[in-house]
Amino acid sequence: MTTDSSSSQTVPASSGLRGQSAGSTAIATVGKAGVGLTYRGYAIEELAARSSFAEVAYLLLYGALPGRAELDAFQQRLKSAQSLPKPLEQVLERIPRTAHPMDVLRTGCSMLGVLEPEHNFQEQDRVAERLLATFPSMLVYWHHFGATGERIDTEAQGDSIAEHYLALLHQQPPDAEAGRALDVSMILYAEHEFNASTFACRVCAATLSDFYSCITAGIGTLRGPLHGGANEAAMELIQPLKTREEAREDLLGRLGRKEKIMGFGHAVYKVSDPRNAINKEWSRRLSARAPDGYLYEVSDEIESIMQREKNLFANADFFSATVYHFVGIPTSHFTPLFVMARTAGWAAHIKEQRSNNKLIRPNADYVGPAPRPYRSLDER
Amino acid sequence: MTTDSSSSQTVPASSGLRGQSAGSTAIATVGKAGVGLTYRGYAIEELAARSSFAEVAYLLLYGALPGRAELDAFQQRLKSAQSLPKPLEQVLERIPRTAHPMDVLRTGCSMLGVLEPEHNFQEQDRVAERLLATFPSMLVYWHHFGATGERIDTEAQGDSIAEHYLALLHQQPPDAEAGRALDVSMILYAEHEFNASTFACRVCAATLSDFYSCITAGIGTLRGPLHGGANEAAMELIQPLKTREEAREDLLGRLGRKEKIMGFGHAVYKVSDPRNAINKEWSRRLSARAPDGYLYEVSDEIESIMQREKNLFANADFFSATVYHFVGIPTSHFTPLFVMARTAGWAAHIKEQRSNNKLIRPNADYVGPAPRPYRSLDER
Repeated sequence: MTTDSSSSQTVPASSGLRGQSAGSTAIATVGKAGVGLTYRGYAIEELAARSSFAEVAYLLLYGALPGRAELDAFQQRLKSAQSLPKPLEQVLERIPRTAHPMDVLRTGCSMLGVLEPEHNFQEQDRVAERLLATFPSMLVYWHHFGATGERIDTEAQGDSIAEHYLALLHQQPPDAEAGRALDVSMILYAEHEFNASTFACRVCAATLSDFYSCITAGIGTLRGPLHGGANEAAMELIQPLKTREEAREDLLGRLGRKEKIMGFGHAVYKVSDPRNAINKEWSRRLSARAPDGYLYEVSDEIESIMQREKNLFANADFFSATVYHFVGIPTSHFTPLFVMARTAGWAAHIKEQRSNNKLIRPNADYVGPAPRPYRSLDER
Repeated sequence: MTTDSSSSQTVPASSGLRGQSAGSTAIATVGKAGVGLTYRGYAIEELAARSSFAEVAYLLLYGALPGRAELDAFQQRLKSAQSLPKPLEQVLERIPRTAHPMDVLRTGCSMLGVLEPEHNFQEQDRVAERLLATFPSMLVYWHHFGATGERIDTEAQGDSIAEHYLALLHQQPPDAEAGRALDVSMILYAEHEFNASTFACRVCAATLSDFYSCITAGIGTLRGPLHGGANEAAMELIQPLKTREEAREDLLGRLGRKEKIMGFGHAVYKVSDPRNAINKEWSRRLSARAPDGYLYEVSDEIESIMQREKNLFANADFFSATVYHFVGIPTSHFTPLFVMARTAGWAAHIKEQRSNNKLIRPNADYVGPAPRPYRSLDER
């Protein structure tokens, strides 16, 4: 046992640090009194209704909501940072079209780090903004090159990161409703305290590594199906279903076979996920424009059954699936969109970790073999 | 405060989880009773004296020392996996020669993950062995291409990963002493329980992400100067000094200016680092062959002064600096060599995390603004 015997453990070691504090933060509260999500004191409901993702990213990165001049300058910096350096495009062209899109962003982030390194921590805001600006460009450049061989222009399109992404993806300017729907979704996904990918960013930042290494670790961690993949899995569940009746039959069958249904329950929220009502309303609103708008009814039915049968509430991922789908986003881009939004939160946490740093180095409980003598190859 | 009030905290939240258990492991003990390092029950002293890195990597990955046939097959698999796929070489050619070598391995690892993805966890051993085999090839391919434009052949050279690396680096077969010195160093660096980079691997693995994402997170975390960079910093300290007298004067000056001296003390070991005596003996032995072999005396003097003046012992990084230097390894490769060795330990921990997984998601203590109303841009 390597654990210092003077520090009593309060939680079994296999619990994944659940309920244990791993540090302090001034960035967000999650699940306070069972509900509630705030970014620097502002309720997520107000931010989703009244602010923009650019405002929220600024709030997270710099600690306060921007004034008009600050916001204009921030948005201008993002727009001017959206196009990709040539060697990065050449790397993206060498990634097979069959690759996992999260691997594209992980590799693109790491490659940008060799091309435009963070020489010292004074450059951290430049790097954070550059990554926020370029992730949509990286993903969609690779997407089109793989599909058609076309090398798209990644110069700024539209006024927001959401509009830029949609314009590059569809190669035409998005309508206002689609742009706003995606912008709100990015507000909801921007930050979530010490979730696994953010914690990975902080573990990396705590060795005083560079910004790109931290974000690369965050992307790789978010890639796992227990973290970022839930809305993709929800979409795969929903998409083949056409009516409430079909949804009910399919879901009850899955529950009978004890299949895990993604998009429900949460590690921290106990009563509800405050982001769900916002996503659900956007899904309902957007369903009117989509040829398969009935998927909203399908989703609503599944939500009701999960509440009734399993006492589980829908989390942020469940209705975000149809929000994305109704504005024409391919399912394989859902988790990369999570990256594009969460980069704001990751960046805020990296800055916060650096501002009051201590190496994050826990102990482990040893459960392996007792000391034993080495025997040479001939004796084995 | 988001911390569940039922779980009392034993350590202040800013302590970086120091002394807190974050899980169980059967892989290694570190600092048991103040000293000691064992890999699966075998003492590091015995492994360093009698085994090879290939045996140790096998032990870590598969849980037991290999028999002759198992070891032969393992080494054959590593040798046949050492050459790089063409698109990865093309990516390495686009990384500037001025890049940080750790960024090269981080990007190379991520790129290999898009070219040869881990489709499911049954492939994890293949991926672990592929990464062990290719990291030396990646680093040295980039090294020579940047320096001379030459595209070296990365086919297997020599019988060990250490010999392969040295043969590629110097473009001639290494002598037996140099090969063995580096092989022993890789044994010492192969594994170290829940150090920061290994913990990053486990945080990533716990979302059930792929192997490449986990190792990429490990590389990025090891890159930080509080973790992997110590022997490079030690070399920079040592290299300009020529005599014990110069060493004493220089070091006392630094201590007087309260400069931090890298390569001393440890987060977990309290009495000594068991790897130091082994590295020190190798440094002494190799000093006879080097034109600047006096750097051993310089190092010995610095070690004595640090013990006397600061009561700090040399850790594994301090004498590994001159070990590497005396066999002709450039200082910028020291941390990448750490990656080449530690990949064995990282891989073992990723496999262990997957075998009994729970998402690693701690809480945070909230110290930010109280709830406040949003004001629109015009009201600010």
